[in-house]
Amino acid sequence: MVGPNYREVEVGEIATLAVERPLRLDCGVEIRSFPLAFQTYGTLNADKSNAILVCHGLTGDQYAASQHPVTGKPGWWEVLIGPGKVMDTERYFVIATNVIGGCMGSFGPKEINPATGKAYGLDFPVITVGDMVKAQALLVEALGISKLFSVIGGSMGGMQVLEWLARYPERLCSAMPIAAAARYSAQNIAFDEIGRQAIMADPDWRDGMYLEQKAFPSRGLAVARMTAHVTYLSEEALHRKFGRELQDKEQVTYGFGADFRIESYLRHQGAAFVERFDANSYLYITRAMDYFDIAQTHGGGNLSRAFKPSDTQICVVSFSSDWLFPTRQSQELVRALNAVAANVSFVEVNTDKGHDAFLLDVPEFFATVRGFLEGVTRKRRVA
Amino acid sequence: MVGPNYREVEVGEIATLAVERPLRLDCGVEIRSFPLAFQTYGTLNADKSNAILVCHGLTGDQYAASQHPVTGKPGWWEVLIGPGKVMDTERYFVIATNVIGGCMGSFGPKEINPATGKAYGLDFPVITVGDMVKAQALLVEALGISKLFSVIGGSMGGMQVLEWLARYPERLCSAMPIAAAARYSAQNIAFDEIGRQAIMADPDWRDGMYLEQKAFPSRGLAVARMTAHVTYLSEEALHRKFGRELQDKEQVTYGFGADFRIESYLRHQGAAFVERFDANSYLYITRAMDYFDIAQTHGGGNLSRAFKPSDTQICVVSFSSDWLFPTRQSQELVRALNAVAANVSFVEVNTDKGHDAFLLDVPEFFATVRGFLEGVTRKRRVA
Repeated sequence: MVGPNYREVEVGEIATLAVERPLRLDCGVEIRSFPLAFQTYGTLNADKSNAILVCHGLTGDQYAASQHPVTGKPGWWEVLIGPGKVMDTERYFVIATNVIGGCMGSFGPKEINPATGKAYGLDFPVITVGDMVKAQALLVEALGISKLFSVIGGSMGGMQVLEWLARYPERLCSAMPIAAAARYSAQNIAFDEIGRQAIMADPDWRDGMYLEQKAFPSRGLAVARMTAHVTYLSEEALHRKFGRELQDKEQVTYGFGADFRIESYLRHQGAAFVERFDANSYLYITRAMDYFDIAQTHGGGNLSRAFKPSDTQICVVSFSSDWLFPTRQSQELVRALNAVAANVSFVEVNTDKGHDAFLLDVPEFFATVRGFLEGVTRKRRVA
Repeated sequence: MVGPNYREVEVGEIATLAVERPLRLDCGVEIRSFPLAFQTYGTLNADKSNAILVCHGLTGDQYAASQHPVTGKPGWWEVLIGPGKVMDTERYFVIATNVIGGCMGSFGPKEINPATGKAYGLDFPVITVGDMVKAQALLVEALGISKLFSVIGGSMGGMQVLEWLARYPERLCSAMPIAAAARYSAQNIAFDEIGRQAIMADPDWRDGMYLEQKAFPSRGLAVARMTAHVTYLSEEALHRKFGRELQDKEQVTYGFGADFRIESYLRHQGAAFVERFDANSYLYITRAMDYFDIAQTHGGGNLSRAFKPSDTQICVVSFSSDWLFPTRQSQELVRALNAVAANVSFVEVNTDKGHDAFLLDVPEFFATVRGFLEGVTRKRRVA
């Protein structure tokens, strides 16, 4: 496929976008011929009406439904995407990108800066969730798709869905923001800042130039991951999974080893994460989330005004035990969408699994996504 | 005052305890002639019946109602303790100790190990909340007080109150555990472990021997403090205090400086903390809390059995917006105390200030403490 502003794009590769015209980032920097890594699952139909864009959270990537090349693990949404699954790849053409700022092949701080021949590091421009979506829109155009059947994502993926709704409602049949909010809260920013401080406190961060200097701030990045990970789980889920159980021992050791299973689990989460993620990407992507405030960006401070009237079918989803993006924030979104007569429904999924529930095997959640996609399919046929 | 097992003790100094008989710590180590730093406020009456022991949280100390010698700030409970205040020093004799494991003069990892002539560092034994209380009990004995009018504390201070109730109910007229729980939860342990990992990841921690090597893990300790601090505040309080307000600027900078007031606040909290607290003390005291499980320690797994029948008047206090030690955990305590026919009442204070509410100007909380102390005074006069 060839378009005016990108090189030829094949599915499941790295697209080069903004070739003819630069993409202007929110910070003011213009970028040209930048890479966007993506994977697709299923087949685009003849009238290009069956494409679903899935948007990943902070640490996700384009490997939504295929083995991760670094970890060897299944895709982060493989529970949902595949033949016969909720996002049935025998019916839908699923597109998953790696956001800009990421570290799996898209334009990000670990890519080589053509101006210097070295990794960007902190010379990488600060990006926003809006910039991520603008880049995705270029890819969707490059694939020749004028209207997406749906755009779906959880957490930061849900914020991308909201940006799509605010920027390009005419390009969406439907949209499902999951476990998200119209703006990042002070508490959300606080946890991000802790993660960034942990990374930047690590001497091996080398003021962001660690790749250059063959170092890596593993310890700081692990602490950042551990902190974030605790916020993704509910207190109930932690209690159910770990409680005060000891790790491979009968009694406490009166020492600083991992006496408790929760400690061992967190250490493992930290250690595994640093094998697959770039520390500077972590800084840039968390910063993009901090800046997320859709009322401010698109509505002059008024959330309803951020959304133009459209026919897009919207389903807002929250999880009852998510304390990072609590249900009341989703309800605020729904009220604002109602105030512009949007086709919006709302589901609070009952689960004790916390924020991360959108990545887990939660039947009520699966049924919600399946029902929504089938409903949109039927409604479109009738129309 | 002179007792059999301690040197002469004057108020407001450092007592030397366990001089004649060693104190056996829960880890099995016996300690002798150890220092316990304390301050007192008010005057002990003739029959020694007006003493209130106040117990501090993780980062508190003996300067409950007097200027802190390092920071120059008012005492951490100066809002509550003083002439005419809730804990009226014209009526009560208030004792505040620095827990063992602490860093303000009590037996702790930064004290000199007589065996080596160097700071203990990681040679310091792992202590428990029970050990803290056993040390306090020696001090109370040394002061010649056979029965405390009350023992009161919030957070880890509340855990100490529960240890007092489980160990020495006959030595207490009354007890008020505030913002505490019968056991440390998986989530509580998780946040502690993040703090410890941040400290131990700092190369300047030097495997715990930083004092020896004239270093200090400031960056790691600051990250630990920032993480803990966020857990002390409610999402509502963070929103009210900071929201998404920017720090001394009109718009975001597209950089990693402190754009948001919450970031600036957290950085300040981290920086101020490392000026006054010892990193190894942070490790040891958080570990003591991790190990806190009063049903396990005193009741063979049964919480009611942890408490002996007694006449102690108990008031359990929780804060509605405390997500670190939520109200339901206080209710669990009350149910267990009811099951042994304890004189127990329960107050959930309505506030959006989160866990830290016990340190703040919360009129409903002040009224609760004042009412309880006056009630106990009246009841005792009648008896």
